[in-house]
Amino acid sequence: METSVSAIEILTKANQALASAEEAKFVANNLWLLISTVLVFMMHLGFATLESGLVRKKNVVNILFKNVIIISIGLLTYYIVGFNLMYPESNPGGFVVFPSFGLEVPNGGLTSEYADYTYWSDFIFQGMFAATCCTIVSGAVAERIKLLPFFIFSFFFVSICYPIVGFWKWGAGWLDALGFYDFAGSTLVHSVGGWGALAGILLLGPRKGKYTTSGIRPIPGHSMPLAVIGVFLLWFGWFGFNGGSVLSADPGLVSLVFVTTSLAAAAGAIASTLVSYLMSKTLDLSMALNGILGGLVGITASADSVSVSSSIFIGLVAGALIPLSVSAFDKLKLDDPVGATSVHLVCGIWGTLAVSIFGNFEDPSIGQFKAQLIGILAVGLFTFSFTYILFFLLKLSLGIRISQEEELKGLDLAEHSHSAYY
Amino acid sequence: METSVSAIEILTKANQALASAEEAKFVANNLWLLISTVLVFMMHLGFATLESGLVRKKNVVNILFKNVIIISIGLLTYYIVGFNLMYPESNPGGFVVFPSFGLEVPNGGLTSEYADYTYWSDFIFQGMFAATCCTIVSGAVAERIKLLPFFIFSFFFVSICYPIVGFWKWGAGWLDALGFYDFAGSTLVHSVGGWGALAGILLLGPRKGKYTTSGIRPIPGHSMPLAVIGVFLLWFGWFGFNGGSVLSADPGLVSLVFVTTSLAAAAGAIASTLVSYLMSKTLDLSMALNGILGGLVGITASADSVSVSSSIFIGLVAGALIPLSVSAFDKLKLDDPVGATSVHLVCGIWGTLAVSIFGNFEDPSIGQFKAQLIGILAVGLFTFSFTYILFFLLKLSLGIRISQEEELKGLDLAEHSHSAYY
Amino acid sequence: METSVSAIEILTKANQALASAEEAKFVANNLWLLISTVLVFMMHLGFATLESGLVRKKNVVNILFKNVIIISIGLLTYYIVGFNLMYPESNPGGFVVFPSFGLEVPNGGLTSEYADYTYWSDFIFQGMFAATCCTIVSGAVAERIKLLPFFIFSFFFVSICYPIVGFWKWGAGWLDALGFYDFAGSTLVHSVGGWGALAGILLLGPRKGKYTTSGIRPIPGHSMPLAVIGVFLLWFGWFGFNGGSVLSADPGLVSLVFVTTSLAAAAGAIASTLVSYLMSKTLDLSMALNGILGGLVGITASADSVSVSSSIFIGLVAGALIPLSVSAFDKLKLDDPVGATSVHLVCGIWGTLAVSIFGNFEDPSIGQFKAQLIGILAVGLFTFSFTYILFFLLKLSLGIRISQEEELKGLDLAEHSHSAYY
Repeated sequence: METSVSAIEILTKANQALASAEEAKFVANNLWLLISTVLVFMMHLGFATLESGLVRKKNVVNILFKNVIIISIGLLTYYIVGFNLMYPESNPGGFVVFPSFGLEVPNGGLTSEYADYTYWSDFIFQGMFAATCCTIVSGAVAERIKLLPFFIFSFFFVSICYPIVGFWKWGAGWLDALGFYDFAGSTLVHSVGGWGALAGILLLGPRKGKYTTSGIRPIPGHSMPLAVIGVFLLWFGWFGFNGGSVLSADPGLVSLVFVTTSLAAAAGAIASTLVSYLMSKTLDLSMALNGILGGLVGITASADSVSVSSSIFIGLVAGALIPLSVSAFDKLKLDDPVGATSVHLVCGIWGTLAVSIFGNFEDPSIGQFKAQLIGILAVGLFTFSFTYILFFLLKLSLGIRISQEEELKGLDLAEHSHSAYY
Repeated sequence: METSVSAIEILTKANQALASAEEAKFVANNLWLLISTVLVFMMHLGFATLESGLVRKKNVVNILFKNVIIISIGLLTYYIVGFNLMYPESNPGGFVVFPSFGLEVPNGGLTSEYADYTYWSDFIFQGMFAATCCTIVSGAVAERIKLLPFFIFSFFFVSICYPIVGFWKWGAGWLDALGFYDFAGSTLVHSVGGWGALAGILLLGPRKGKYTTSGIRPIPGHSMPLAVIGVFLLWFGWFGFNGGSVLSADPGLVSLVFVTTSLAAAAGAIASTLVSYLMSKTLDLSMALNGILGGLVGITASADSVSVSSSIFIGLVAGALIPLSVSAFDKLKLDDPVGATSVHLVCGIWGTLAVSIFGNFEDPSIGQFKAQLIGILAVGLFTFSFTYILFFLLKLSLGIRISQEEELKGLDLAEHSHSAYY
Repeated sequence: METSVSAIEILTKANQALASAEEAKFVANNLWLLISTVLVFMMHLGFATLESGLVRKKNVVNILFKNVIIISIGLLTYYIVGFNLMYPESNPGGFVVFPSFGLEVPNGGLTSEYADYTYWSDFIFQGMFAATCCTIVSGAVAERIKLLPFFIFSFFFVSICYPIVGFWKWGAGWLDALGFYDFAGSTLVHSVGGWGALAGILLLGPRKGKYTTSGIRPIPGHSMPLAVIGVFLLWFGWFGFNGGSVLSADPGLVSLVFVTTSLAAAAGAIASTLVSYLMSKTLDLSMALNGILGGLVGITASADSVSVSSSIFIGLVAGALIPLSVSAFDKLKLDDPVGATSVHLVCGIWGTLAVSIFGNFEDPSIGQFKAQLIGILAVGLFTFSFTYILFFLLKLSLGIRISQEEELKGLDLAEHSHSAYY
């Protein structure tokens, strides 16, 4: 009898130990998602500094103001409507009701039964992602767009367009069912931003003086240190963007993702520098910087499912695409002050396709390639249409481009009555 | 008999598993406090860049120098005297003896019996906090204070004033017994800094040329990119400031704190921008920035104990207070180059009161409101008196204000014989 | 019988709990190494901003470009050849074969049997370290070195010299067997960088106009805010550099390392400021900054094995050495624009010796001092010879110094046809 009492006691203790161990893992996994959130948050400062570094001195306050407001609108909007639209399954109210109001979240916010993180960890991590797609657009339309229509655009882009596309794959929608793979968002985040940027560029037209009868006139950014700070902060944030997309602190996967992400970035810098040197015989710092970003965007779709050597190859191709793409866009007179379309759209497409070439999938057949292509096209068609129509309606109603005098004077004095430097 | 031998073996194993699981949780919890330390550390760079961005070019080296020295003095001072004064219970020597010397800390530095972190984790996290209250003052008194008296002020502020007030609540003192609640320091850190700033402003007087017979002359900061870098770094650090104040990696609480903190910041930016637009018809970047900070200060007292929707409301009010407060201080001719009193004092008071309005406490009665009010008043009275007297004695002895010529020339050349830019 | 079935079930459960708890610890330990990687990564931005802040406006693009390419070359090189050269035991192919290609890493990348982290975590953490030694050199040779030879130098420095020296100690080589102790690399990283810097300085000669017949002409850096950003980011990164070198999230050790590292930095700032004030009667911001770095370099060898009070003393001495060393190098006409040799070489040597004075070793005898001295001399002799010969061969073949006209014009226009600011 003593033995049998003992058995129950021991069983209780063993169960307690098991629960405690599971809880410890849950704490560590959730912690990594939260830390990733902090890292992705820094990407907003990265975009702010990169974009302000690459515009002219007279438009710096304006681009900084945009970046400050975008993250603010983005988080609030995603809380009010985006999150439940993108992940209806996680939200008791589904698409329509906004359960995020109040504290009544599933299981008091703890979701260890089906995930390695809490409801609020999930929300804040995804919320930091959501706002980035707007920031991508802000760089491409810089130095000539009006503030108010841009903020209206941002509101609908973050609250409707981005979550719908995200739902298709990450909310277990039709693209997911199809087998489309996009680990951390080469397509779902970066191309989405890139398509929005392209729509904006098309409807806005180039900056005055960029494409002249005597050729393309380069308009250098006003501060290379700011641009460098921006790119390093983006790389820094990408450890969370890709690493956090593992959605747990799984040691094998997260560490692999760190290595593939970093080596793709490094390879992107080298390839972009070399190709741009071959094209223009100069060692172009901004090309090296965009090469890093191209490598990062390129590896984002497959960071968890390619070998390290493949990641270097993906980064090299992405980097090489940057100067080619920048030059092609310029020939088409599509004026993108920071190169956002080359980085996020072109390399986003490349990265998504690369999944089917290098990915360690059970069926890396033409089937995977088709799925990737369908995903790229569907997302592109929807996002481009959505953003084109949205920008078009704003153009008809409020107007989206500042006046010639304002452009000459600069947006800082025109819209803010304040310069960036005194 | 075989069974009973087995039972002992199994019991041993179960106990071992339980201990190992507890240890794993301790490792994760302690890790989060350390990572929070790193995040809070970055707030010092945040303050340094924000403040240097908001002063004139001729005073940049001076404010940077102050921020570099403050964190250094702050950490050393807190080690020598502040930590044991604030937490006598954690320190074997209590108030007077400094056990922090040498390695002889309680339980070899491991405090898992009563806490989720080690002695040294506790010290370094609290040490990073301590130095911030000085940094708040440094912005408000910028462009006209002498270096030496400021450093003497800093020494006593960090080693005596801040720990005593902190002890009242966090060291389990009388305010804690009263039921006063201040999660991460709207009052105990930010208002303390704000009261010190106010005392300094009153005794120093405004910068030359700020308040003229023809009205208030705005003195724009010299670099908005630096100011933006500063605010983003402060937000970044606040994930550790508030998130780390949970004092464990508790998934539910830390993730809630991340969400309330971020949404209050976002709401602060929006409200501050709108209200300042209504007041002055300009889209003022520095108001948006201070709106973020106001929201962050406002949520700091209650980040762990309000609903997410309440956090947005708290942020909105805090943000709206910023332009109103800045304007009110200017009407009173209280010259604060960076708006530190509006951000840290006014929003700190609001945030502390908000606890009793929105907090999920068992007794959210007038009792809680009274407790908050008593806390605000007691801390305010003590800190303002302490800092006013300290600054006053320094004014009598060393003098605290630079000469008119030095102010005209700028502190960089006057005190450092070096400019910030060449 | 029921009881005996139960016993097996309970045993299974207890075993499961034990495994789960061990796994939880592995997750947390590995997570800390990954987060440390992210922190050390930021040191590259720290070096980039510090060095660009301390050079003249006309050489800013060049130094930024170098820093962008160094981290890229560094990571790729370390992947291809450095890692297995430094840690042959961790790599199945040993010195020669590069197992890092492909996914075929030991135990599928999980190394919990013999370590607290995965193969890839180890690689990426060490890879971030490797690139820093090059960055140290880049500051010292700034404003006068040609780009291509510098990149060739970097390639061999990271892929051959650094890993060989690292292997001596951290790869369990002869210095390790000797009892030489260097926790996180005062000698193995910082002095290695410092010796390379010294070799470069000797072969390049000083910048034009630095040492004139009428005395030493100070050449101020172009932006102190950039320099301050750099130093704070370096301190930020050092939490990972030293904290991650514990190679687990051990609460007692990591928290001690955080405290010793921070207090040494703080003490370094104070000592350097005071000594330089005594020497020149000015409050020199760049001396305070280099004092922080000196303190950090100094504590790096012993951060895990000295008392906190000792760490303050180590930092004070390191800080005091900075202005003395800067002045001594200037007297020897060794021109180092950022003070890299004073910070990394002089304080690296001091920190390595300090191990034998303050370290908590069982035998803190002359034996330890001898071991430290042998380590310093052996590493110095090898690294200085290696880098001197490498730079010398580059000088003979490609030339390493830009022309007088290019130096006058600045490297930005000469090598990049682009200025840093417009």
